[in-house]
Amino acid sequence: MTTFTEKLHPGYAQEMMLKGEPLFEGQSPFQNVKFFDTERNGRVMALDDIVQITTRDHAAYSEMLTHLPILEHGKVKSVLIVGGGDIAIAAEALKHASVAEVVMAEIDPVVVEKAKEFFPEINRKAVKDKRLDIQIVDAFEYLGRPESKEHFDLVIADRPDPVGPAEILFADDFYKRIRAALKPGGFAVFQTGVPFYQPEEMTDTLKQMGRIFGTCGTYLSVVPTYIGGFMALTWVSVGGAVLGDARKAKKVAAAFTASKIKTDYYTPDIHWASFALPAWIARLVPKKRK
Amino acid sequence: MTTFTEKLHPGYAQEMMLKGEPLFEGQSPFQNVKFFDTERNGRVMALDDIVQITTRDHAAYSEMLTHLPILEHGKVKSVLIVGGGDIAIAAEALKHASVAEVVMAEIDPVVVEKAKEFFPEINRKAVKDKRLDIQIVDAFEYLGRPESKEHFDLVIADRPDPVGPAEILFADDFYKRIRAALKPGGFAVFQTGVPFYQPEEMTDTLKQMGRIFGTCGTYLSVVPTYIGGFMALTWVSVGGAVLGDARKAKKVAAAFTASKIKTDYYTPDIHWASFALPAWIARLVPKKRK
Repeated sequence: MTTFTEKLHPGYAQEMMLKGEPLFEGQSPFQNVKFFDTERNGRVMALDDIVQITTRDHAAYSEMLTHLPILEHGKVKSVLIVGGGDIAIAAEALKHASVAEVVMAEIDPVVVEKAKEFFPEINRKAVKDKRLDIQIVDAFEYLGRPESKEHFDLVIADRPDPVGPAEILFADDFYKRIRAALKPGGFAVFQTGVPFYQPEEMTDTLKQMGRIFGTCGTYLSVVPTYIGGFMALTWVSVGGAVLGDARKAKKVAAAFTASKIKTDYYTPDIHWASFALPAWIARLVPKKRK
Repeated sequence: MTTFTEKLHPGYAQEMMLKGEPLFEGQSPFQNVKFFDTERNGRVMALDDIVQITTRDHAAYSEMLTHLPILEHGKVKSVLIVGGGDIAIAAEALKHASVAEVVMAEIDPVVVEKAKEFFPEINRKAVKDKRLDIQIVDAFEYLGRPESKEHFDLVIADRPDPVGPAEILFADDFYKRIRAALKPGGFAVFQTGVPFYQPEEMTDTLKQMGRIFGTCGTYLSVVPTYIGGFMALTWVSVGGAVLGDARKAKKVAAAFTASKIKTDYYTPDIHWASFALPAWIARLVPKKRK
């Protein structure tokens, strides 16, 4: 393999030239797993030949799913990550001193083991952190356990696209279990695809979230190797709490400064800017029923 | 040709599957010119095998280089477009009733003729507009003419990357001619590459602009087929006028509503959000000399 080709969206492909030999290629019980270095995109993990994370641009994804809801919520102690086998999201969440516990519910042990081996710069510190609890488990099953009930201030769904083993992570029952697992005032955030190539995923998810949670919305990040420009991130809450409330701007900026967290993507300005939707994306938001 | 492959950034490529036969392939006096329909990206024009415009996402580029400076300036009458042979930028500028004159200085007659033929949905109305003056001319030469002096409220550099015939459009002398062509209070805006793959282009341009114009800055758009996520747009002014001054938010929103312009990307919220830079892009802004 000298070139990696991703054909996620029919009719379009991206190609990355490799640097040296692939680091790992294998079949886990769940999927094909590849780790490799590239000329332009840093180190990459691909599952079933879809890019999941690159060292060059993961901050745009990991930071926006962690720092944004954690800083705006203000009192996040307990975090559940659905998937997240590369441990990048967990690493960002653990940068917050207020966070006492991060549970990662990842089904694939091969992803976790190989991510520890090949992404040490991302997750070395997190792996040693006593607050991190890596559970090799189906997240749907984990969410159904009695001890998950009203346990989390923040649930982050870092799941692949809705095909194969991840399909269950897009069903009503999955979201209802998340709702039950959230503490009052808690938030959940979900990657919701790239609207340019997957517009229906954003619209359908918001309809589903409106039905199940009532309060929901979209914010955006730009992860160059998640091809297609903007990535939609969906937030939901229990009890009517709102994410993207710019009246909290001063509080969030002060909390970010106090945290002393160094970021590659997130800034307090980007926090609020990410809720502005280009006209074509705003039109994908389903109209509220009267 | 059943697949179009763009290799703009060494070590990376994007591929688009074609829909049907290419519409046009030829060699102009200046470059290779291709028009074709694709499965996912609409109709595309490529010059020397680099995507210049697609019907699916050009709004993110055309609208942000026109509506944003025109609405914030408030009194733009005369616009010069450097390049812009597809007539998409001109079409957006002409949507403003306040605009009395749009001069397009494009060197390649083949691009203009074929864009009229193959992008009628984008430029049909503009082509018939008496306010549009299409000059087949080297923009550098045009800017040097006596009648260009202090003639324009807005100059939009819609130029390709700094290679081949466009190289002159990145030299100090080119920018000095733009400075001379601007009326007091006028703005010029430039596409400045995709920082993810061309970080030095943004840094170098801002250094050069600081030297030549004094007042300058960056705002962002996201054009999916300009691969790499964010595209940097640079603004400059003569006489110290500032673009991205959020104190004008109410005025801009009212002017946009009054214009009745329908957009696919631009909104007043996106206007201000586009000045927020992710941390990694903010670090590409050269430090001001004391």
